[in-house]
Amino acid sequence: MDNALDHCAEWVLTAATAARQASSVLARLPGAARDGALRAAAGALRAARAGIVAANARDVADFDAAGGSKAFRDRLLLTPERVEAMARGLDDIAALPDPLGRVLAEWARPNGLVIRRVAQPLGVIGMIYESRPNVGADAAGLCLKAGSAVILRGGSDSFHSARAIHAALVAGLTSVGVPAEAVQIPPETDRGYVAAMLGAAGLIDLIIPRGGKSLVERVQREARVPVLAHAEGLNHTYVHEAADPAMARAILANAKMRRTGICGATETLLIDAAIAPALLPLLVADLRALGCDFRAGPRARAIVADLPPAPDGTFDTEWLDAVLSVAVVDDVEHALRFIRNHGSEHTDAIITEDAAAAARFLNGVDSAVALWNASTQFCDGGEFGFGAEIGIATGRVHARGPVGLEQLTTFRYHVIGTGQIRP
Amino acid sequence: MDNALDHCAEWVLTAATAARQASSVLARLPGAARDGALRAAAGALRAARAGIVAANARDVADFDAAGGSKAFRDRLLLTPERVEAMARGLDDIAALPDPLGRVLAEWARPNGLVIRRVAQPLGVIGMIYESRPNVGADAAGLCLKAGSAVILRGGSDSFHSARAIHAALVAGLTSVGVPAEAVQIPPETDRGYVAAMLGAAGLIDLIIPRGGKSLVERVQREARVPVLAHAEGLNHTYVHEAADPAMARAILANAKMRRTGICGATETLLIDAAIAPALLPLLVADLRALGCDFRAGPRARAIVADLPPAPDGTFDTEWLDAVLSVAVVDDVEHALRFIRNHGSEHTDAIITEDAAAAARFLNGVDSAVALWNASTQFCDGGEFGFGAEIGIATGRVHARGPVGLEQLTTFRYHVIGTGQIRP
Repeated sequence: MDNALDHCAEWVLTAATAARQASSVLARLPGAARDGALRAAAGALRAARAGIVAANARDVADFDAAGGSKAFRDRLLLTPERVEAMARGLDDIAALPDPLGRVLAEWARPNGLVIRRVAQPLGVIGMIYESRPNVGADAAGLCLKAGSAVILRGGSDSFHSARAIHAALVAGLTSVGVPAEAVQIPPETDRGYVAAMLGAAGLIDLIIPRGGKSLVERVQREARVPVLAHAEGLNHTYVHEAADPAMARAILANAKMRRTGICGATETLLIDAAIAPALLPLLVADLRALGCDFRAGPRARAIVADLPPAPDGTFDTEWLDAVLSVAVVDDVEHALRFIRNHGSEHTDAIITEDAAAAARFLNGVDSAVALWNASTQFCDGGEFGFGAEIGIATGRVHARGPVGLEQLTTFRYHVIGTGQIRP
Repeated sequence: MDNALDHCAEWVLTAATAARQASSVLARLPGAARDGALRAAAGALRAARAGIVAANARDVADFDAAGGSKAFRDRLLLTPERVEAMARGLDDIAALPDPLGRVLAEWARPNGLVIRRVAQPLGVIGMIYESRPNVGADAAGLCLKAGSAVILRGGSDSFHSARAIHAALVAGLTSVGVPAEAVQIPPETDRGYVAAMLGAAGLIDLIIPRGGKSLVERVQREARVPVLAHAEGLNHTYVHEAADPAMARAILANAKMRRTGICGATETLLIDAAIAPALLPLLVADLRALGCDFRAGPRARAIVADLPPAPDGTFDTEWLDAVLSVAVVDDVEHALRFIRNHGSEHTDAIITEDAAAAARFLNGVDSAVALWNASTQFCDGGEFGFGAEIGIATGRVHARGPVGLEQLTTFRYHVIGTGQIRP
């Protein structure tokens, strides 16, 4: 950092330094004490319910005055039920197994040294997120359980909500002796805090951005700190020629239409030319009945003539909506090539009864999550059994796919000797 | 990247794109084929021995003309024996177990989905290193074995050596059908290639810098790509009051003096006040006999009066030389505090016969490698049993400590279903 610290960078320097000390306290607490702190924080959220809803009402009023979108408003809104859900989320995290201290590997060397790889806290995590105020409470719960301190930077729209939630969390934590600095938020909405967090090399150990594409891209572009990014999910469901037609219909309808706005939703259907004439009309009819629209390549339109054509860029578009891109392919290799060219290495599925084709697909596709005969919407920490997730990582280092408590840890080697020296 | 691509960025764009295709070929080769390619590369290095030594002679002549240091010259120099050692290094890597395809975890969900976490290649690795030309061959061997393509950017001083080594590696690889683009080097010494590699977000998956402090710091400051940095090793050996004196003497002499220039060398001795009067004079005498000098705090000088005093900054200095900083501490907590304030989270050891004190130290110190009753010089991939290492990671994400083949991989989830859809 330069000599001329601006006030945001100065705040981050102070906050992150205090956070590191808090994380070293957290790291040495037994798991039961960290769980107790989460339950105390949950209790404090419940006790502060009315105040949190009132603070949120200020944010919502400002938002309405500025004339924002209805979908965004719903994400911003907190009700007593939503505050209760946040509190229950913390209780649920408290009930999960302790991710710290796990012996990830252990072996002995010929010289008698015993080497253990042991799970440890990451240290100080910076969470940068948008709109949904509950993300702050969820992220704090996961980070604290994993022994890390966290600096939460929510969107400006939810500033009052975030402050009220933060105050409740801190009240809960300090009531059981956990340092207040374990969870911190910047004192104002100034965007400079994001820049300062991204530049805090050596102060913050990991930045987790969660929000729209432009937020994530800005974080990736500017960060001087390692980033666990959650970029787009341009996911394919590939119906192989040996697919069970009924299974393909059920899975595609679910993968596309169960929820269209989540990153695990299917955006593109690939279907083998051999099965497309028989099956594609049925798939289209199923999805149309659910309200789905289409953008189809020429080979698909040659089979179902009334499919809308695919304009340029169709197969590079993450719709996050009730729209499906459709292309006919020749075989597994063609599908893999298509996914390499257009996919985002997030989540891709093959539907087939042919185990050899499935193996070629699972080993050939380079996605964080590759599925065989299942819906892409299973790309989710809860569905993976992680209990809770802080996001879906789309990079290639540290973690890929759903990020739960285990992925929020690092490790350390313990080397146990009896006086060994190196020859 | 901006529209105005300079020629270095243009080269990196082309090279990394071709490297990604090559890595996707490598990733699908069976382990035996990757091993065969490494053996072919080793054979090609042996066949090109005379040419490599001649190319190196040009580098050394340029270096002598510029009047460089003797230590650096020795690191730069290649002899036929050193070329043979490089080739043997590749053969050794070929003999290691395949890191790809390992099932890291597998579990079933209540809905019948089976989830497997499977080791996968990282993709495209950028290796930025200085002086020792053999680092290029070692790094290429490890990356290729782990299924990744690599772009090698060695120091300008070793440019002709690096070119000759690269040509031999490529001759070996292509003789068995591996794409030449699996290992690439920039065509000239222009420093712009480093900047272009550091800016290659989305093109290069991981940058590994290996060299002096200023190189590593530049990489950490400028990189837009994840970095596996190898920063300094400001390591402590802490002699606890319950240490076995003979063991403490043997370990400290080894930890400090076996090799003083490696990152696992001990730089600071901490010794408990209770044992210092009896033991510190012996430790000092042992190390003096080995040619070690000292910088000691006041409590140590009160015991051994002729120890040179420690100027400001002593305990924050990585000597990488026959010099030891010495401080007397009160107990384990004091030692941990001292290490938190002055250490670099690399490698720290406790010498004690007291298991409870050892546990407090191992769990309380935040180093990548924490040892009990062993020399800090064991922080090494070979000594850990990894067979070979590409460096020692000092960050907290992805990998910590010695980085071998396993740490050069990422993972992917395979989800095996029977038609599951998400409720």
